[in-house]
Amino acid sequence: MKNDINRQFRLKSRPVGRINDSDFELVETPIPVAQDGEAVVRNLYLSLDPTNRIWMSDIDQYMPPVEIGAVMRGGGIGRVVASRSPRYQVGDLVAGFVNWQDYTVARVDDAMPLRTLPKGLPIPLPTMMAACGTTGLTAYFGLLELGKPKAGDTVVVSAAAGAVGSVVGQIAKIKGCRTVGIAGGPEKCRLIKDEFGYDEAVDYKATDWRERLVQATPKGVDVNFENVGGEIMEAVMLRMNLYGRMPLCGMISGYNAAEPAKVDFTPILMRRIGIQGFIVLDFAAKFAEGSAQLARWVLEGKLKSRETIVEGLEKAPSAVNMLFDGSNVGKLIIKVADPAAI
Amino acid sequence: MKNDINRQFRLKSRPVGRINDSDFELVETPIPVAQDGEAVVRNLYLSLDPTNRIWMSDIDQYMPPVEIGAVMRGGGIGRVVASRSPRYQVGDLVAGFVNWQDYTVARVDDAMPLRTLPKGLPIPLPTMMAACGTTGLTAYFGLLELGKPKAGDTVVVSAAAGAVGSVVGQIAKIKGCRTVGIAGGPEKCRLIKDEFGYDEAVDYKATDWRERLVQATPKGVDVNFENVGGEIMEAVMLRMNLYGRMPLCGMISGYNAAEPAKVDFTPILMRRIGIQGFIVLDFAAKFAEGSAQLARWVLEGKLKSRETIVEGLEKAPSAVNMLFDGSNVGKLIIKVADPAAI
Repeated sequence: MKNDINRQFRLKSRPVGRINDSDFELVETPIPVAQDGEAVVRNLYLSLDPTNRIWMSDIDQYMPPVEIGAVMRGGGIGRVVASRSPRYQVGDLVAGFVNWQDYTVARVDDAMPLRTLPKGLPIPLPTMMAACGTTGLTAYFGLLELGKPKAGDTVVVSAAAGAVGSVVGQIAKIKGCRTVGIAGGPEKCRLIKDEFGYDEAVDYKATDWRERLVQATPKGVDVNFENVGGEIMEAVMLRMNLYGRMPLCGMISGYNAAEPAKVDFTPILMRRIGIQGFIVLDFAAKFAEGSAQLARWVLEGKLKSRETIVEGLEKAPSAVNMLFDGSNVGKLIIKVADPAAI
Repeated sequence: MKNDINRQFRLKSRPVGRINDSDFELVETPIPVAQDGEAVVRNLYLSLDPTNRIWMSDIDQYMPPVEIGAVMRGGGIGRVVASRSPRYQVGDLVAGFVNWQDYTVARVDDAMPLRTLPKGLPIPLPTMMAACGTTGLTAYFGLLELGKPKAGDTVVVSAAAGAVGSVVGQIAKIKGCRTVGIAGGPEKCRLIKDEFGYDEAVDYKATDWRERLVQATPKGVDVNFENVGGEIMEAVMLRMNLYGRMPLCGMISGYNAAEPAKVDFTPILMRRIGIQGFIVLDFAAKFAEGSAQLARWVLEGKLKSRETIVEGLEKAPSAVNMLFDGSNVGKLIIKVADPAAI
């Protein structure tokens, strides 16, 4: 890429089903110049998450959808390269909504201003976005605050090889639970046991996955950390014990669908299940506590972070589809620029 | 009826859809004689509830289904007419599972023994089963412990003219909430406003009920006390505010169905709704507190109890269908025998 331009992915049309490259326009604009109160950030890494797909759709959701013509919204990490803001210094690493572009203008009065990362933490930047970032915090608060796992509980996690699921399983193990991960294909099933310590793995692509789920949960399910929705969620709900807890983190199986799969509510009543929808921002007041704990576990070797890194901003739209194909493991990240060179 | 027999409704076949009289056999047996440790209870009133229909089906549920050939399970009130048990005295009024029959044998070692009602409370027996009984306790704990209403909250209640719903609305008003009841037909809608103090009534039989629900909830819905399920529940969920609470008490719309209507989970995630399935027994440890409060409100005139009383044990099977037709108001009760005569 040329160094004097700022490429921006602008949403051209709302995807129908899978994302098409033609749903975005890659626009070349000048590199922004910092005005009073602003800083210019060179984007280094972009976080690709199922929520990116939600934001592209004009549906009921927890933030406004991205408007047609606007730069695509996305979290990530960048480095301040120019600043006329007292809040940011040149060289600072910052995290937050850097969006799908090479450069971001950070303003102090942004609704959700970019936050400065602590200096000198011996944790790689991709891990700061994965197990130690909002992904890890999603797993941490969703499991501990809403799932309320007790030692000995059976915890089921769908999308267990994914960014959030891989962390949920490890935290549940740290807390003394029996962990059952649901993932697609034998390779991922091996991985979640070997790498993320899951006690059991259920391959939802196997024709007998329902029986395997039953076999893997002989004492029922106390906590279902739900990432997928649809028939997998339904099957797990039928295994839930009385007073089971179900943090509802996502339902990726429905995000590409025109109509989400509907689900039988009966087990919620009969087994007196507690369900709580959440997003990580619900716990923003406790982020410092959670981040510190996650970083400690990573540094102690108790929590492994796994990332799939795709090189090049231009790959962002097509790479989001990997989340739906299940072709990533752990956190899916776009490397926009080399941190060593910036 | 003859006075020397004990009529018992035994389940002959599991109903398909609505209950048919042929699903039960009315058997005449001798009046039981109290053995050591037993008391014989003359049943006075039977409580008919949606859960009776659930117990007839061999589905996943919170108690074992009634076995084919067994006396139909049911709650009610009776009077002890013979006792060889230190726990019960002749003349005592008792409540609990008296089942669909004229006489019940109470044993101290029953899994859920009949409990003796306090003497001399100036509250009619039907009210002791309605607003002051498990029905009232269901409303009380479901709303207050799970719905957590705050003054000013909008509380929506489905089946608002029913046994539980009529009490939920009144307690929500006592707590300073704005109450919106959903009921079938203009007559019930008038009733829930005039009698149970609902601020708004939505007639789900009107073709424009969805629009009316929207109009009746201009500030959204903070608490949805759910009794019905299916498309009514779905429509209310789409009106719920961020962090809305939804005590799931019942889903009567599905109990006659071979397959329950499935529901879109999306609002749970997007609006971060908390759902908790429950039955009143979950709060058994606090029944004394709840019963005392409900009786106090009734005696103070703050809580009205409404009952639909059907005369004659022989009507029990067909009367349960009234719950599904919506042809009862308040608590549906079978009068088995006249308390004044026993």
